[in-house]
Amino acid sequence: MTTTDRPGTAALPMPDLSGTFPGPFPTGRHADLTEEHLGQWLHRFPLLGPPGAQRMLRDIVAHGVARTFPTAGPDGLFLCADLFLWLTAFDDTFGEATAAGSPVRLVRRIQRCVHLLADGEPPADADPFDTALQDLLVRLRARATTAQYLRVTGCLRDVLFGILWEAHHLADPGHVTLHDYRAIRPHTVFARTLVAVAEVVLGYELPEEARNSPAVRQPESAVADLAGVLNDLGSYARESARGVPDSLNLVALIRREQNCDVPTAYAAASRLGEAHAATARRGIGALAAGGPAPLAQHARALESIACSYVWHIDHARYTEA
Amino acid sequence: MTTTDRPGTAALPMPDLSGTFPGPFPTGRHADLTEEHLGQWLHRFPLLGPPGAQRMLRDIVAHGVARTFPTAGPDGLFLCADLFLWLTAFDDTFGEATAAGSPVRLVRRIQRCVHLLADGEPPADADPFDTALQDLLVRLRARATTAQYLRVTGCLRDVLFGILWEAHHLADPGHVTLHDYRAIRPHTVFARTLVAVAEVVLGYELPEEARNSPAVRQPESAVADLAGVLNDLGSYARESARGVPDSLNLVALIRREQNCDVPTAYAAASRLGEAHAATARRGIGALAAGGPAPLAQHARALESIACSYVWHIDHARYTEA
Repeated sequence: MTTTDRPGTAALPMPDLSGTFPGPFPTGRHADLTEEHLGQWLHRFPLLGPPGAQRMLRDIVAHGVARTFPTAGPDGLFLCADLFLWLTAFDDTFGEATAAGSPVRLVRRIQRCVHLLADGEPPADADPFDTALQDLLVRLRARATTAQYLRVTGCLRDVLFGILWEAHHLADPGHVTLHDYRAIRPHTVFARTLVAVAEVVLGYELPEEARNSPAVRQPESAVADLAGVLNDLGSYARESARGVPDSLNLVALIRREQNCDVPTAYAAASRLGEAHAATARRGIGALAAGGPAPLAQHARALESIACSYVWHIDHARYTEA
Repeated sequence: MTTTDRPGTAALPMPDLSGTFPGPFPTGRHADLTEEHLGQWLHRFPLLGPPGAQRMLRDIVAHGVARTFPTAGPDGLFLCADLFLWLTAFDDTFGEATAAGSPVRLVRRIQRCVHLLADGEPPADADPFDTALQDLLVRLRARATTAQYLRVTGCLRDVLFGILWEAHHLADPGHVTLHDYRAIRPHTVFARTLVAVAEVVLGYELPEEARNSPAVRQPESAVADLAGVLNDLGSYARESARGVPDSLNLVALIRREQNCDVPTAYAAASRLGEAHAATARRGIGALAAGGPAPLAQHARALESIACSYVWHIDHARYTEA
C-alpha cells in the first residue's frame, strides 16, 4: 500500500496498484472534443446549476470517458459521456442528501425515468432530465443491437434503484450490512453500466455463451468491485479532510463491523481493492490471451474501465475540498 | 355499462365489454395440469403461508394463465404460472400494507431480487423467494432468446419498482396524481410482464421495427391499461363491500381529483375501461389483419391477455369478502 499525501488529508493507506494497474494510462485523443460536446449538450439540457460545478463535472467526465475508451470514435464517446454526466447530475440533484430527507420525492422522480426506460410516452411537463434521458435512449437505440439496448437500460434501472437504496439508508446506515453494501456498490458507482456500454461504444458484441461464462463474469465483477472500493477510498479521504466522512461508505462499514479505528478500516478496504485488482488483472489476462476477437476486445475494455477509475479518484472533484 | 350484482357489493357500474371482449373465453386445456404443477412448485419453494390462501391463489393463477395462453404447451404455461405466482406472493408478502409501515425493509428485500436480476451470485442466506426467482430465471434463460430474457427481466425490475412506489404512497396517497398512477399501473398489475412473456411462452418473436411501431405499441398499452382499470374496479368493489375501499385505486383518485361521489367516480373509471377496451380491440384487429405471422400471433396473445383480465376479476379472490 501507499499512503495519501494530498494536502488536507490524513495519511491513509491507499491500495498499491503498481503491480496490477500501474499507469501511466492512455489519455484518449478526443477528451477536449468530448468536453466541448458536453458543453453543447448541457446547453440543450441544462442539468446543472452553478457554472463552477458544471465546469468541474464536464472536465472529469470528458477526460474520464476518453480514458475509459481511448480507442473509441467521437460519437460513441459523446453518447457515453452524456450518459455518465446524466447519471452523475441525477445523483447529485435528486439523490444523496437531498433524497435522504424525503425518499418519496425521489421515488416519484425515478418513476418518470422508469416510464421512459419502459418505452412510455414522454410526459407533457418534461424537465431537462426527462428530455435528456429521452435523447440518450434514442441515440442508444440507434447505435446498439436490441440486446445491447435492453442490457444498458436494465443497468440504468439498477443504478436508479441503487440511488433509491442509498437514500433510504443514508440517514440510518446502522442496518446496512457489508454484504448488502458490496452487492449494490457496483451499480451506484456506474461501473456495471460502463461495462454494458462498452460494446456499444466500441462496436463489438460478445457471444452469449461467453457472456454468461465465469471467464467473462469474474473479471467484470472484479473491475466493478474495484471501482466501488476506489471510489469509496477517494471520497472517504476527501470527506474526512472536510471533517464529515460518509457514513454509507465501505470504510465506515468495515470500521463498524470490525469495531476498529479509521486507519485500520481504511487499510482493510485498501487490501480489498488490491485483491479485486489482482482478480481483475488475472481474468483480463486470461480473456485477452485466447478465444475469438470480441473476448480480447472485451478484455481491453475492462482493463481501460479499471484504469479510468484508478485515474479518476485523483481528479480535482475528489481531492479539492 | 352493466352493474355489479355480487352479494355484498353496492350496485356499481361495471364497464360494458360485450361489444369488445364479449366472452365466453377459451379456458385452455392445461389448467388442471398447471394447478397441479403449481402445488409441486410451491412445495419446493414455500412462498405462501396459510393453506387456504395457497389454494385460492393456485386456482386463480392456474386458470388465469391457462386462459391467458390457451394454445400454449405445458412447459411454457408452467413457467408463466410460476412467475405470476411469485409476483403475486411477493406483493402479498412484502408489498402493500406490510411495506407501507417500513418502506426501507421493502427496499432491502427488493435489493436481493435486483441482485439476481443483474446476474449476481445467489446469497448464502437465500430464502424461498430468492431460490424461486433463481429457478425462474434459469428456466427463462433456457427458453427465451437473449433479447426476450432481457425484456422480461426489465419488466420484472419495473414491477418491483412499482411495488416500492405503491408502498411509499399507500400511507399518504394525497400526492399521487391520476397521471402518475396511470403510468405505473400497467406494471403493478403485471400486464406489461405478461405481454413480454407471451413471446417466450408461445414461441414467436416480433421483428424489432414492428415492436417499436405504434401498430404494436398502441394495442399493447391499451391492453395493459385495461388490465389496470379492471383490476382496480374489481378490488374497489370488493374492498368497499368490506367497508375499507383502497385509497390507492383509480376510483379513489378520480373521486378526489373530480371531487365527486363514489358511483360517479366508478362510472368514470368504467368508461375509461371501455375506452381502453375499444382501443385495444381496434389495434388487435389491425394487427391480426395483415403483415407477417408473428404480428398475428402477437395480436392473438394481446387478445387473450385482455380476456384473462376480464375473466379474472370475477374470480373468488376478487369477489369473496
